[in-house]
Amino acid sequence: MTRLAIDAMGGDFAPNEIIKGTIMALSKTSNLEVILYGNRNIIDVLLKENINNNFFKNITKKIKIIHTDNFLSMDVQNLREQLRIKSDASMFLALKDANDNKVDGVISAGPSQALVLACHLFIKKFDFMKRIAFSPIYNSFDNKTRILLDAGANIDLKPENLLSFAICATVIAKELLDIKNPEIKLLNIGSESSKGRSLELETYKLLSQEKKINFCGNEEPQNLLTTTADILLSDGFTANIALKTYKGAINNLSKAFKKILTDGFWVKIISKLFFHKRIQNMKKKIDPNEVGGAMILGLKKIVIKAHGSSSAYAFCKAILQGKKLIEADVIYKTSKYFNDNNKLNVIDTN
Amino acid sequence: MTRLAIDAMGGDFAPNEIIKGTIMALSKTSNLEVILYGNRNIIDVLLKENINNNFFKNITKKIKIIHTDNFLSMDVQNLREQLRIKSDASMFLALKDANDNKVDGVISAGPSQALVLACHLFIKKFDFMKRIAFSPIYNSFDNKTRILLDAGANIDLKPENLLSFAICATVIAKELLDIKNPEIKLLNIGSESSKGRSLELETYKLLSQEKKINFCGNEEPQNLLTTTADILLSDGFTANIALKTYKGAINNLSKAFKKILTDGFWVKIISKLFFHKRIQNMKKKIDPNEVGGAMILGLKKIVIKAHGSSSAYAFCKAILQGKKLIEADVIYKTSKYFNDNNKLNVIDTN
Repeated sequence: MTRLAIDAMGGDFAPNEIIKGTIMALSKTSNLEVILYGNRNIIDVLLKENINNNFFKNITKKIKIIHTDNFLSMDVQNLREQLRIKSDASMFLALKDANDNKVDGVISAGPSQALVLACHLFIKKFDFMKRIAFSPIYNSFDNKTRILLDAGANIDLKPENLLSFAICATVIAKELLDIKNPEIKLLNIGSESSKGRSLELETYKLLSQEKKINFCGNEEPQNLLTTTADILLSDGFTANIALKTYKGAINNLSKAFKKILTDGFWVKIISKLFFHKRIQNMKKKIDPNEVGGAMILGLKKIVIKAHGSSSAYAFCKAILQGKKLIEADVIYKTSKYFNDNNKLNVIDTN
Repeated sequence: MTRLAIDAMGGDFAPNEIIKGTIMALSKTSNLEVILYGNRNIIDVLLKENINNNFFKNITKKIKIIHTDNFLSMDVQNLREQLRIKSDASMFLALKDANDNKVDGVISAGPSQALVLACHLFIKKFDFMKRIAFSPIYNSFDNKTRILLDAGANIDLKPENLLSFAICATVIAKELLDIKNPEIKLLNIGSESSKGRSLELETYKLLSQEKKINFCGNEEPQNLLTTTADILLSDGFTANIALKTYKGAINNLSKAFKKILTDGFWVKIISKLFFHKRIQNMKKKIDPNEVGGAMILGLKKIVIKAHGSSSAYAFCKAILQGKKLIEADVIYKTSKYFNDNNKLNVIDTN
């Protein structure tokens, strides 16, 4: 039985969509128990509203609630202050219980940076890890799912951090995406090994020498959606720049196309008739809600960051992703990987 | 009379499109003379082919040719080697003549990195400048034209380099884009002044203190196409990542939309009837060929890098852009700006 801690109060549409998503997940899978962290009164009302037939009633047995009045707002800035004045915030309690082995993992749609920092503080890391990585998975028009890391947890990284991230992500890609020998590439401004800053030059060397990962060279960011790589490595600043640029470009071009397809009465009708369904299908292919949440890698517990704007469906996906990772025993497999590789080819780059 | 040096052999479609573009520019404007650097025989044939009526015949008087057998291929890697074995390559000769005041500026569609490096070697910089910046201008759906720099000349920069770039770009935005008080923003992963690496934190401080520029804070890259800024500042690595991500996202989404609009016989006919013209108009809005070339800023000469894939039309635009910058006397105005600001608020960040 997998036990997951759910931060019921984190997310733009919490607790409503979080509770709905949790019920959805429990109805779709067996061997799962959840603990909801948040305001018991509100959660109870939402559970009653959404569990209204006999089929769903079994689900209530699989749900526990741990009450707390406090939670982090989505625009939280000063985490240290929050730790002082809201030490019992729903996210913090969930993480603490994970570290105390009361649950196997945590799912939260709360504020990303706060979650990353709180993980740092509350959950043990692998001995080999000096940093933890924020690792979204994303899908593309080619129906391939890829992992990007670090997407924002660390703005300054060393080559050895990126090597340890590569190892964690390799295990995840094997177990979550069912890829035998995951291909890793380094995000860079050119494909040649001589391209990039000293970070990229040194990381390229280090990754090339490590035989337990499948490093396949540099990848330029115009190929983010088409790369043969299963895992794209980068420092948090660069990956964040790339992700945000991507988001902006897609949004702006989509808006421009939408205007073309809806500008005028007849045009609107024709678009609806001929293109509506096709466009919905295409949008679905790159919809981040379709692939679950971002993982926080390097920790000795599974922590999934669902999108802040998670719908019930998206949050349900994040829960199922967490369950899959726990059932596949990725924490044990990652630690085994590190232990079996005590002498990883780490070059001292200092 | 403005005299421009044209690298006739640089570009994916050189010399054909370069010669055509030059003729186009000469037919559209007066007070312009050009010197074509390249293979005289080939250029002569192309000139004859394209100047075949009396109206165009006047144009020949405004064209000189400086013969050389050598030029840089578009995939040139080792510039130092090229300098040794092809010291008379068309691009090098054009730049040397600019530095010797034989011409007022240079237009080349040759390989970008080689052009930047060759500018470094052959053309004097402003005393204040320690680096030069690669500065494309780009347009957007909102019909606003913006300058991005540094887009790849320097992968490592200091805050004071970015300040000097901000000053050069301010003069360009005033004179080329006719903007009274150009707004400058710093590309960053967050809008707050506390966001980013030490480069962004220190640059933010430095730019805030300089009263002769209109610094308006950080800009996140999802707003690349919608920012109120006229000038976006960044280091060459980051800007290159953003530009390439943008290019990839637009290409991939455009392909996906194209598939939707052309998949099937009737769909194709309907798309052609209702949407073809609108889509062409939208594409034109973000077509880099519409805005001229990238400028290489910090030099005491105007150097324009036209797109490698320049059509005649795009190359003509780059020539007219160069002419406008020369006629507006931006080199003098920039040097005056630096001289009038001998005590720029440069903080020693070392």
